[in-house]
Amino acid sequence: MLENKAIRTELSELGEFGLIHELTKNIKLKHKSTIKGVGDDAAVISYGSKQTLITTDLLIENVHFDMTFMPLKHLGYKTAIVNFSDIVAMNGIPRQLIVGIGASNRFSVEALKEIYKGIYLACENYKVDLIGGDTVSSVSGLFISGTAIGEAAKNEVVYRNTAQKGDLIFVSGDLGAAYMGLMILEREKQAFKADPNLQPDLEGHDYILGRQLKPEARTDITKLLKGVGVIPTSMIDISDGLASEILHICTDSDKGCSIYEDKLPIDPATVSMANEFNIDPTTCALNGGEDYELLFTISQKDYEKVKDIYGISVIGHITDKSEGINLISRSGTQVPITAQGWDAFLKGKEKN
Amino acid sequence: MLENKAIRTELSELGEFGLIHELTKNIKLKHKSTIKGVGDDAAVISYGSKQTLITTDLLIENVHFDMTFMPLKHLGYKTAIVNFSDIVAMNGIPRQLIVGIGASNRFSVEALKEIYKGIYLACENYKVDLIGGDTVSSVSGLFISGTAIGEAAKNEVVYRNTAQKGDLIFVSGDLGAAYMGLMILEREKQAFKADPNLQPDLEGHDYILGRQLKPEARTDITKLLKGVGVIPTSMIDISDGLASEILHICTDSDKGCSIYEDKLPIDPATVSMANEFNIDPTTCALNGGEDYELLFTISQKDYEKVKDIYGISVIGHITDKSEGINLISRSGTQVPITAQGWDAFLKGKEKN
Repeated sequence: MLENKAIRTELSELGEFGLIHELTKNIKLKHKSTIKGVGDDAAVISYGSKQTLITTDLLIENVHFDMTFMPLKHLGYKTAIVNFSDIVAMNGIPRQLIVGIGASNRFSVEALKEIYKGIYLACENYKVDLIGGDTVSSVSGLFISGTAIGEAAKNEVVYRNTAQKGDLIFVSGDLGAAYMGLMILEREKQAFKADPNLQPDLEGHDYILGRQLKPEARTDITKLLKGVGVIPTSMIDISDGLASEILHICTDSDKGCSIYEDKLPIDPATVSMANEFNIDPTTCALNGGEDYELLFTISQKDYEKVKDIYGISVIGHITDKSEGINLISRSGTQVPITAQGWDAFLKGKEKN
Repeated sequence: MLENKAIRTELSELGEFGLIHELTKNIKLKHKSTIKGVGDDAAVISYGSKQTLITTDLLIENVHFDMTFMPLKHLGYKTAIVNFSDIVAMNGIPRQLIVGIGASNRFSVEALKEIYKGIYLACENYKVDLIGGDTVSSVSGLFISGTAIGEAAKNEVVYRNTAQKGDLIFVSGDLGAAYMGLMILEREKQAFKADPNLQPDLEGHDYILGRQLKPEARTDITKLLKGVGVIPTSMIDISDGLASEILHICTDSDKGCSIYEDKLPIDPATVSMANEFNIDPTTCALNGGEDYELLFTISQKDYEKVKDIYGISVIGHITDKSEGINLISRSGTQVPITAQGWDAFLKGKEKN
């Protein structure tokens, strides 16, 4: 941990304005739409005839992340990504980011700079301007709030309540790996608690650990869809797990759906780890959260245009509301998909 | 406190989505520029040729507010106001608000609804659309992050780094009252701790208590200025105290200033309470924070147009940088104004 390093500047040494300067002095704005970034009462952006998208997400220590295994730089990166992902899920392009950090005096200036390193890296990778924020002291613990602003042409914004009967349901990438990554980290934490001399056994789990610690927002997928001239009929990002998200799309669109178990994209590493933990891989895919993949529907007439896009899978189709929201299992059994969010799932697991 | 009332619904009973629904089900959008509010990955706003202003502020329990004397509804109101005030300080009009709340299980659903009541009241009073947010559980304590979005015509946005030599310096309303309100509340808290049978002695302090517990954003002032066709040359809102804010304007504009002690607008109730606490009223006005008044500069040629506006006072003028940032005391002595923010001030007070 950073706290053990030789250099440690107390937050109180810099003061609020000194700290803000220290954290933001190297910002270079990338977009013409960013008129004014950090350094005034508010940021100023301008989009002409385009629409502006805004989203906010809070990450809280010991609720959304565990400092024992989440490196600070990764935490900063993830804060940015979860917000970018929400903009992408509206079919928009993230352009600006505002970050608020509450940190107790347990954290040094160097620790906050490490968080900012991750934020800057994400902004660099996604070509986003960091335009402001608020850094305050908290009595205990660390939390970060991110607010992302994005743009989209008026007719290109995609909502979650506009899926139509007959539409095909797609997901990007693969599902359940981020949750398996969390399980490994939790296991090693428990092992370390039991015997502090044990070295963490993380070898060979790069992929699923990366999915948990360094998620990405799928701007590449929306770009590919745009490239073939297809606008999804509805879209959402998978932060709480596929089950929770498809319920949002169906409920908000007043529709039903059939999702096919054998179509769910699950990485072999996820399957193998799920088996090791004695969890059904399908359960991981349905209820494991934090994959930040896209779940979207497209009109059947657009199928030919998208069928060769690498990295997306058809997993089912939208039905009438009366048919319900169902998973069709490998054996052909129809099982209603129930609301089981990320939190509920975790609590259930802890009881086992 | 709400926690003692008969009705208490645990956060876990509703679940995340139930809670969001419970808190947002009565929202009615007010603005054409709000295309989509709560209920998707991101909100959608549209401003045509106008510029969009964005600001965010975090309020943390036991840092920015004390639950023993801050009613939850007031807390919600204040969260909205401090963000609206930042938009107003850019000469913009607040239009949308996003709120993030982190609350431990010490807080019931009723408690969160009470916070939202205050947020809704502020949105109603200022005609602002609540368009989204994030409500999550925290391990301990309560914190609220607000993000406000506002609009302004391109040529009407006012920054803090554009004050010119010779400009007159104005403040709206009066200064120091919010800090005196906090001092009274702190005094009664200490008295209550010493003897829980004591009734709080808040009688006759309505004005200064109101300034602390229910601040307002001065949209009326920017409207009046617009009415007489005057755009300030620079502007900032007074959240950390006049001294801190005039330093921002002068430093960022690369200028100096002279502020006259005898011109500082201080309410008689503030003076009287400052005397009771044995604090110099000028110190309250300079370093007491949270008044949320506006500090702005206008060109001398505009003086005739604004001199009859009720509720603003000239307190000095902008000078060359080489002349320094000074307070001219009643006796005519020139005293450099130093960076002494709200936090530093409070810490200083605690030592006394």
